[in-house]
Amino acid sequence: MKRQFLFGLLILISFGSYAQSEKEDSLQMRAIYDEALVRGEAYSNLHYLCKNIGNRVSGSANAQKAVDWSFDLMENYQFDKVWLQEIMVPNWKRGSIENCFIQDADGNDIGLSITALGGSIGSNGVLAAEVIEVNSLEDLNNRDNKEIEGKIVFINQAFDQRFIRTGSAYGACGGIRWNGAAEASNKGAIAVINRSLSSKDDDFPHTGSMGYRDSIPKIPAMAISTEDSNFLSQFILDGNTKMSLELNCEMHPDTISYNVIAEITGAKIPEKVMVVGGHLDSWDIGEGAHDDGAGVVQSLEVLRIFKALNIQPEHTLRCVFYMNEENGTRGATAYAEWAKLNEDEIPWVAMESDAGGFTPRGFSVQADDIYFEAISEWMDLFNPYYANLLTKGHGGVDIGKLEDQGTVLIGYIPDSQRYFDLHHSDNDVFENVNKRELQLGAATMASLLYLIDTHGLPEKIKD
Amino acid sequence: MKRQFLFGLLILISFGSYAQSEKEDSLQMRAIYDEALVRGEAYSNLHYLCKNIGNRVSGSANAQKAVDWSFDLMENYQFDKVWLQEIMVPNWKRGSIENCFIQDADGNDIGLSITALGGSIGSNGVLAAEVIEVNSLEDLNNRDNKEIEGKIVFINQAFDQRFIRTGSAYGACGGIRWNGAAEASNKGAIAVINRSLSSKDDDFPHTGSMGYRDSIPKIPAMAISTEDSNFLSQFILDGNTKMSLELNCEMHPDTISYNVIAEITGAKIPEKVMVVGGHLDSWDIGEGAHDDGAGVVQSLEVLRIFKALNIQPEHTLRCVFYMNEENGTRGATAYAEWAKLNEDEIPWVAMESDAGGFTPRGFSVQADDIYFEAISEWMDLFNPYYANLLTKGHGGVDIGKLEDQGTVLIGYIPDSQRYFDLHHSDNDVFENVNKRELQLGAATMASLLYLIDTHGLPEKIKD
Repeated sequence: MKRQFLFGLLILISFGSYAQSEKEDSLQMRAIYDEALVRGEAYSNLHYLCKNIGNRVSGSANAQKAVDWSFDLMENYQFDKVWLQEIMVPNWKRGSIENCFIQDADGNDIGLSITALGGSIGSNGVLAAEVIEVNSLEDLNNRDNKEIEGKIVFINQAFDQRFIRTGSAYGACGGIRWNGAAEASNKGAIAVINRSLSSKDDDFPHTGSMGYRDSIPKIPAMAISTEDSNFLSQFILDGNTKMSLELNCEMHPDTISYNVIAEITGAKIPEKVMVVGGHLDSWDIGEGAHDDGAGVVQSLEVLRIFKALNIQPEHTLRCVFYMNEENGTRGATAYAEWAKLNEDEIPWVAMESDAGGFTPRGFSVQADDIYFEAISEWMDLFNPYYANLLTKGHGGVDIGKLEDQGTVLIGYIPDSQRYFDLHHSDNDVFENVNKRELQLGAATMASLLYLIDTHGLPEKIKD
Repeated sequence: MKRQFLFGLLILISFGSYAQSEKEDSLQMRAIYDEALVRGEAYSNLHYLCKNIGNRVSGSANAQKAVDWSFDLMENYQFDKVWLQEIMVPNWKRGSIENCFIQDADGNDIGLSITALGGSIGSNGVLAAEVIEVNSLEDLNNRDNKEIEGKIVFINQAFDQRFIRTGSAYGACGGIRWNGAAEASNKGAIAVINRSLSSKDDDFPHTGSMGYRDSIPKIPAMAISTEDSNFLSQFILDGNTKMSLELNCEMHPDTISYNVIAEITGAKIPEKVMVVGGHLDSWDIGEGAHDDGAGVVQSLEVLRIFKALNIQPEHTLRCVFYMNEENGTRGATAYAEWAKLNEDEIPWVAMESDAGGFTPRGFSVQADDIYFEAISEWMDLFNPYYANLLTKGHGGVDIGKLEDQGTVLIGYIPDSQRYFDLHHSDNDVFENVNKRELQLGAATMASLLYLIDTHGLPEKIKD
């Protein structure tokens, strides 16, 4: 009887303490969201990055300006440590000439909305040839080489609107941009044009990285807007195939750049590091507002919120602005290598924001199930913020470099519907970022890191 | 033993049939989403409404054009019945003169971004007076009448960014627009200006309806943009109080207008009617794209999807484009009165979309708990679409008129973060609607109506 009584008491005490802790967590989260929504600085920081610096492809003068600005900003926030990690980055330059014309039946040249893909070689003067349309890489590979040889290949594979998460649709057609040049060249093509990987019908071409293969001749590669893809397709169907194009983009030697890093050193267990970050570089069109200006200002905002609310983390909270996610991932690779060489620096947890500054939905956990289960216990705390989604899967490209180090990788998931309308295009500008959506994202990220810091995560049982 | 076996068999059979039905539901929902995302027409219909007709305040020529277009469109879709319900609507006209100036220390007039509130009287020539700032209706009411008499009252109460659902923030400050004129006039003011009920700092004033009270003199009422609210506040603080304004808006006699209605008649239980709708009128600035062009084209899209997929509903599925939600709710009132007079027409279920064409989050149920519980059983089916939120609460202004008829009221809930940036302003234009978000909303609405039609709802036990 006594034993039963004691047992009952223990349950009551432990329930009481759980309820107490849950209440404290929910109050602290409310303070975090209030700080982000009322006094947030992510949005004004993003304004500066987009409007006073602009786009910032690796190796550019703007990328260096962004590094300098980030460093100064972190120092002004008076975090415990701020430093640069030097790396070498690819240095691709778009050049001043970029055009593509199709000739109509009367011999008139009609300009098409195109943009060089990042990494493409130039055309070495004007290339004039017949254009041939294929609807996928598979279609291309099924063609006789004779059909392709000496031609410009137009790969007109559309974004599949049926996917609910647009990242999945992007992934499903991404091969035409990544592999199009090599596959087309392998069949004897002299240039390749892919339909933009875009969820919207408009006149803005979307750039992005592409690759060559050592054994296959390099050919120029570009993207064409979705509207002009439709136009070009009809034009070809009508019997017009004379195309000319010129690009003078080129790859320069690697150059020096930096990851920019700030931390609030942990009060109790400083050697356990929670990293939060996004990538500072962007493509060289638009302003890199959602991709990934949003991710870096949100990551910095997490530290700012902790400091503003006097939340002293027990573990070290570190913000990393990775350089060169877009065309090389050199920053993230260097960070992961440095951590591996300095065992104490292997991050315990790494969170990434690189899916746009849209309304928060939740997180994706890329780690053992025990971590997923532990985090899922907290997700009801996100109900009042409509950000309680937790999925298993990809954490992010930059933090992915830490995968083999046992780090718990967490991808921040915002709503995905608008991202590929503007991603890598002239439409990715500050005006298309909503202040509340951006700030809510920062609060959501800060809240989960607060919960991890406060309650810890289970110790993984070694296999 | 035999009994146990039979019991076990029954469980298996019933589980099997549940699993089967769930699978069928999930396949049908996938088809609904595919139809909306790949062949959806809500977005192109909205384009026509916004760009070929434009804004359409009750009583305007544009409102009549919108009625005609809606009727023709519904007829072209070949639904079973299409008809108009005649109603009388208020007929307020903005007029051609609308300005407000503050005078600086050198006597220069500085124009402010203002817009008349819907329903305001004109100023009958130029009104010149001192302006006085208050920060709430409470602040206004605490002032001595002497402070207010003969002055223009500027109510500078900001949108509270801490609310996560922006509709709550709108509600919290909405009183300054609804009641500002009466409260200020009651203290002797000669005009009133309220800070726009907007979540964004910009230069676009937001209109909306306001009211007078019979016993209190009517005074002109207008909204000022959030940026100019900040400017004006500082200007007053600096000692500048000379203001002049002129409006020639006026109320004309009530005029004829219409609700526009289409239905697919139920195959088995036609007398049980499921209504889905939004409001066809809008304010007279911008294009009424999100408010509520989105809601009407989504509601129509629900019927189009049923027809395109050959889903023959067992119950009648009816689409109502309500007229005059913005300044009178006359359309919804007339529809509810008509239903009450014709008992078979009392809707079983009424769904409303009037919160913008943004990413779906789920639904709000305004009905007895048994209905909420029944609908909540289905919400896991919405997980793949990230639209599984179910809350209890307000269904919508138009369907709210059916509240006393026992109708199950369901409000469609899209994401709310951007709505009050543009609501009732020149920014509420087609370009600010995202196609995928709009179409996903229509699919989400169609899916829930499909589930209700297929599985029914519990019969309410009469009290």
